[in-house]
Amino acid sequence: MHFTSEQHLDDGVLEREFTLGEIPGILWTPASASTSAPAPLILLGHPPLGLRTMYPRLAGRARHAAADGFAAATIELPGSGDRPRWAAAEQARADLRRAMEAGEPVGDEIIDALVLPLVEKSVPEWQAALDALLSLPEIGGPVGYSGGVISIGIRLAVVEPRISAAVLFAGSLVPAAMFEEARRVTIPLHVLLQWDDEGNDRQAALDLFDAFGSKEKTLHANMGGHSGVPQFAGDAAARFFARHLH
Amino acid sequence: MHFTSEQHLDDGVLEREFTLGEIPGILWTPASASTSAPAPLILLGHPPLGLRTMYPRLAGRARHAAADGFAAATIELPGSGDRPRWAAAEQARADLRRAMEAGEPVGDEIIDALVLPLVEKSVPEWQAALDALLSLPEIGGPVGYSGGVISIGIRLAVVEPRISAAVLFAGSLVPAAMFEEARRVTIPLHVLLQWDDEGNDRQAALDLFDAFGSKEKTLHANMGGHSGVPQFAGDAAARFFARHLH
Repeated sequence: MHFTSEQHLDDGVLEREFTLGEIPGILWTPASASTSAPAPLILLGHPPLGLRTMYPRLAGRARHAAADGFAAATIELPGSGDRPRWAAAEQARADLRRAMEAGEPVGDEIIDALVLPLVEKSVPEWQAALDALLSLPEIGGPVGYSGGVISIGIRLAVVEPRISAAVLFAGSLVPAAMFEEARRVTIPLHVLLQWDDEGNDRQAALDLFDAFGSKEKTLHANMGGHSGVPQFAGDAAARFFARHLH
Repeated sequence: MHFTSEQHLDDGVLEREFTLGEIPGILWTPASASTSAPAPLILLGHPPLGLRTMYPRLAGRARHAAADGFAAATIELPGSGDRPRWAAAEQARADLRRAMEAGEPVGDEIIDALVLPLVEKSVPEWQAALDALLSLPEIGGPVGYSGGVISIGIRLAVVEPRISAAVLFAGSLVPAAMFEEARRVTIPLHVLLQWDDEGNDRQAALDLFDAFGSKEKTLHANMGGHSGVPQFAGDAAARFFARHLH
């Protein structure tokens, strides 16, 4: 893990860009984080639109987390930003676009082709990032995962024992296979659902919530579309992490 | 409105029993409430099991509200506690018990007979209580309604403009007519749903949430049965009132 830039934001948060092999990432640490008081960590998931596009929202979430005493980190997803594309994913994206523009239902084979390789490729990368991040003296446990792609969050919750709580955003297409995987999730979950999300199947999101094996799981449904999560819903998610990671 | 008893609870909350005509009720005011700083008011709804049975849970909710600076009040529902029964309601209760013990679906005519007269009779009583409570110098607005019977909360939200926010508990049978009425609700809503509520139809609860006309409405679904609302869900409901009534 190589830090390639660092800057202090006006609220005292230290923002550092890094590379992990060929994967770019960003780490935010609160002013309070130190070797003697390492900060718990929240991994910031995001849709595959590239870190540069997502930066303003990610930085906002990171500063919110830092205000609660958390470090936050994210990495570029495979096939996004400047990372190499792969043909099958490009094809799946084109198929998805075509189906949505035609107002057709998005077929299972498109969803599988779009999401499953992304889960397979990205989850080991998040785990490698976790190895590197937890080796920093100013970062401690426990670790939370926050955000979309929800299938990545599900897989991480199943395979990565260092993640002890997750805020999942029910706003992306979910392959049928992930419903089975959801039954094996046991960590506390806080699931956000935008009730009128234009790109999301509400019933599928409710079925997925039902499928999760966790004893503590909460669904927060709010009005508005995909990117209209209200401020108070973000605050509630922050309190969930404060309860479970502090 | 006649106060019939008063006691100071150990957290400084003043608990007063009252009668309003022949309706018994209880008012809790925080130590901070005064003529110069009147407290906003939360009406505490409850299932028709009688105030004496419900007292421990009501007092707990009232003390939680008082800690946030709210007064809280409740009244006995018609046909509950020591108030006179009416034959149709007794018949409907017996029919409900029989259907549930037989594991049969509860028919619309049972639900209507059980709930609609309760709404018709109780809502004007809540409004009369509101008149009396708001005439007390230590109580001010705004006013919230909290709890079940959800159909009472819906009707109050539609007809009573002094109620400016409601926490509704999706835990009771809802007559079909109330779904139409729900579309006319416009105040901010915070709806609690116990995902595994044995006495509640989850899909009906989700449909009802969908029906509400409010621009701001939030659904908080949590694990567990009817009476298993987790502490953190109560805290979240309290924050909803703090946002809307302070």
